[in-house]
Amino acid sequence: MEGATKPLCQSPGCSIQVSRIMRPDDANIAGNVHGGTILKMIEEAGVIISTRHCNRQNEERCVAVLARVERTDFLSPMSIGDVAHVSAEITYTSKHSVEVQVNVMAENILKGAKRLTNRATLWYVALSLENVDKVVEVPSIQYTSPEQQEEGKKRYEAQKLDRLETKQRSEDIILPVISVDRQSKEPYTVGYSQSSLIHLVGPSDCALHKFVQGGVTMKLMDEVAGIVAARHCKTNIVTASVDAINFHQKIQKGSVITVSGRMTFTSNKSMEIEVFVDIDHVMESPKGKTPAATAFFTYVSLDKEGKALPIPMLKTETEDEKRRFEEGRNRYLHTKAKRMAQVQKGHCLPIHE
Amino acid sequence: MEGATKPLCQSPGCSIQVSRIMRPDDANIAGNVHGGTILKMIEEAGVIISTRHCNRQNEERCVAVLARVERTDFLSPMSIGDVAHVSAEITYTSKHSVEVQVNVMAENILKGAKRLTNRATLWYVALSLENVDKVVEVPSIQYTSPEQQEEGKKRYEAQKLDRLETKQRSEDIILPVISVDRQSKEPYTVGYSQSSLIHLVGPSDCALHKFVQGGVTMKLMDEVAGIVAARHCKTNIVTASVDAINFHQKIQKGSVITVSGRMTFTSNKSMEIEVFVDIDHVMESPKGKTPAATAFFTYVSLDKEGKALPIPMLKTETEDEKRRFEEGRNRYLHTKAKRMAQVQKGHCLPIHE
Amino acid sequence: MEGATKPLCQSPGCSIQVSRIMRPDDANIAGNVHGGTILKMIEEAGVIISTRHCNRQNEERCVAVLARVERTDFLSPMSIGDVAHVSAEITYTSKHSVEVQVNVMAENILKGAKRLTNRATLWYVALSLENVDKVVEVPSIQYTSPEQQEEGKKRYEAQKLDRLETKQRSEDIILPVISVDRQSKEPYTVGYSQSSLIHLVGPSDCALHKFVQGGVTMKLMDEVAGIVAARHCKTNIVTASVDAINFHQKIQKGSVITVSGRMTFTSNKSMEIEVFVDIDHVMESPKGKTPAATAFFTYVSLDKEGKALPIPMLKTETEDEKRRFEEGRNRYLHTKAKRMAQVQKGHCLPIHE
Repeated sequence: MEGATKPLCQSPGCSIQVSRIMRPDDANIAGNVHGGTILKMIEEAGVIISTRHCNRQNEERCVAVLARVERTDFLSPMSIGDVAHVSAEITYTSKHSVEVQVNVMAENILKGAKRLTNRATLWYVALSLENVDKVVEVPSIQYTSPEQQEEGKKRYEAQKLDRLETKQRSEDIILPVISVDRQSKEPYTVGYSQSSLIHLVGPSDCALHKFVQGGVTMKLMDEVAGIVAARHCKTNIVTASVDAINFHQKIQKGSVITVSGRMTFTSNKSMEIEVFVDIDHVMESPKGKTPAATAFFTYVSLDKEGKALPIPMLKTETEDEKRRFEEGRNRYLHTKAKRMAQVQKGHCLPIHE
Repeated sequence: MEGATKPLCQSPGCSIQVSRIMRPDDANIAGNVHGGTILKMIEEAGVIISTRHCNRQNEERCVAVLARVERTDFLSPMSIGDVAHVSAEITYTSKHSVEVQVNVMAENILKGAKRLTNRATLWYVALSLENVDKVVEVPSIQYTSPEQQEEGKKRYEAQKLDRLETKQRSEDIILPVISVDRQSKEPYTVGYSQSSLIHLVGPSDCALHKFVQGGVTMKLMDEVAGIVAARHCKTNIVTASVDAINFHQKIQKGSVITVSGRMTFTSNKSMEIEVFVDIDHVMESPKGKTPAATAFFTYVSLDKEGKALPIPMLKTETEDEKRRFEEGRNRYLHTKAKRMAQVQKGHCLPIHE
Repeated sequence: MEGATKPLCQSPGCSIQVSRIMRPDDANIAGNVHGGTILKMIEEAGVIISTRHCNRQNEERCVAVLARVERTDFLSPMSIGDVAHVSAEITYTSKHSVEVQVNVMAENILKGAKRLTNRATLWYVALSLENVDKVVEVPSIQYTSPEQQEEGKKRYEAQKLDRLETKQRSEDIILPVISVDRQSKEPYTVGYSQSSLIHLVGPSDCALHKFVQGGVTMKLMDEVAGIVAARHCKTNIVTASVDAINFHQKIQKGSVITVSGRMTFTSNKSMEIEVFVDIDHVMESPKGKTPAATAFFTYVSLDKEGKALPIPMLKTETEDEKRRFEEGRNRYLHTKAKRMAQVQKGHCLPIHE
């Protein structure tokens, strides 16, 4: 094991160690740390070390940006309470790129056991801070032997070839119809702005009990509504109001929820977005989705002085969309009338008046 | 304003104040705090006060669960650096529910100015900690006057009626075809497990420069792949490996990214999931999506002792799915052969063998 | 600087380094990293190293719990994008406690500059995992010299005495009137700036055991102190130092804690804020609050060039406020005298000189 960590780079400061205790939010309900948590730590070590290196001999301030990660195996699962030690070092530099090799060890500090869980290789390029489209030259590291440099060069050539191939493939690629094919939709239609997100319910969403706190759900609902509103009018948008929300179903830790939003109505200065929350019991037999909550969010668009901007009118296409638009208009007029009555009694006005 | 905060409940401990500074991640790129952040704080105050109240005179330990939020207006935008003061108090109790009224003030602590930004009314029910399907009786609060109790009762009846109506409506509702209609798909097909999430790129995703750090993107890719894997086999799944990932495009702060995953191949004990990251330039003119990265994740399913479980075989339906399955099989065999060669050289084995 | 990091402990595995990029959420709006963020990182390194050490020779699995932090000076401000390097090592062990000394360096990876920002000393006790009320014996470290052990013993005796005194004081304490009606208060009075926040202890606050990690508590204490300081002087403020903090009570997952702060003293260029942490057992029968920790934070106000600004004098109104102001002045003069002695020996100066 220790052999794996003997220094390959003799330049000063070209290795780093990042350590952190694994928390409940880093893991799934069985207690296994997500691969994604480890990948994120690996990249944090990589970006620190390569940014530091690229600024070493350069006049021009620059940042390292991740260009490629080589194939990575997860050799052993990590658990909550383990300490993850990520050690990274620069192992090769070409004219414009830096190779970083990373080892991840998991340490059980209660038992003293330590084991290798990952090895990864990352490639960074340095971009100028002033002009981020400009690739900057990378200073060379000092190699411990000519063989080491030679082997690095081979790895560099191999990954370059692979990147080229992938690039061509990715241009060929027909984008999957997984999410809505937005490109085929006309701007300002319902389909154009409709959006959905999935959220895996983690421990921090359920601090008091094993169910999601209502506030977490509302935050996600507002997030989707905000994306729908931004897609529709492409300006700075803010929440103006939320209609009554009823919660029909408790949402358990470990479930996956889908939060979907579609625009239902636009007035001159406001948009109404309907949001649905559905529970997908991933671990249970296929009983489909259970609706958990729905609500109407009203958004307005603000200019830099905070004044409300006009909203492009929603284009309704189907009968359902037209009906929902009418229902939205009724809610809008009803609220407006109610608010006028309150204003006469001296109450505050909401944002969008 | 001050009038609104005079105590309505005379029981001890039935009001609470929660304050917090608004951070960059609480707000959009224009600096306006998300409505969702405020809704989440409101509910946090509500759940604390009502859980505390319900445990006051009860023998049985219980937790308060949000049942309904009344319509809420956002009266004034809040900014990064403002202190949000959320004060909540219990204003009515029925046999099984608690009404909490909340005021949110934004304080600019540098200028000393304070303004009302929200008023909200939340309804909680108390559930037994031992048996979360059992609704527990709520102790009554002490009212300041009979009128106060009478008005609370009216609000209680009104919301009860509305909840009943919504429930009926929600049963009528035809769920929107926003996301994939999973119910119509057969288990173990590609369409059945395919998933996607959207993520709004926030300041903490971009600490070093104005672009997303690669590690953040990889974490999201792993999250989607994990959901696809869990949907397919409905067991505890962990990442076994990630194929080389190439990053084609920088992703800017404020963009919305869509991360989509679909299963491409299953062997006896592993699943391969292809993941796509696409950038959606929400604020710019409609130029559709730009692909930013793709990768293949391999997942395995583990039992409680950490042993690999058999994986249900993927059912391919279209020509494209069959072709991708074959390509996946080739990658699988190629990796396996390569690994056997390494084992003979004495290297570590990854999780899934 | 490098001299400060020469190993004091010869036992294997008794040092650790934790590094992380500072993100926007770690800092205030002027871009200065919160003292609380740094205190939390310091404690994370401390709890890892001392838990690891206590389990080394013990049969009984145990966890290290923070009992005390010695006075800490913040020597230089840290900014978003800097890499914080926290290195910790065990420097003394008594029968039941572990002393950890920590150095924090800030590295600007764009400019290559590295500077010392903090030194801290933490005391941990080891509690049995099976029975958290049982204190476990700590294995001794191997000292490099008898003098080193002798000096450690002196520090141990000194802090023991101080803890005893604080405990008695904390029983006297009259809890502050939280959540005041700020608008009726005159600027620069104690009541005008006093503040409190409530925090629901979630799973991520307790990664290693079912109690809050000391670092989480310290971060919240710094947050409240910062709000008090900003309210008083309405400028960009930063933590200059924290007096010794003693932790009297373990705080369990699921509790609600109230963190309150009030200003006690102002000099020309600094403010002293007293912070209280109280536990509110939401789920249990009404036994009122339990004090968990208290501390004095010193803040300074900086202009855009990082120079200390004059502080408006605190207006004391009651006899208690006047007494506390005098006590604060004594602490201030005592620290100043001590620091002058150190300066003559060639040590670093904290931020506010």
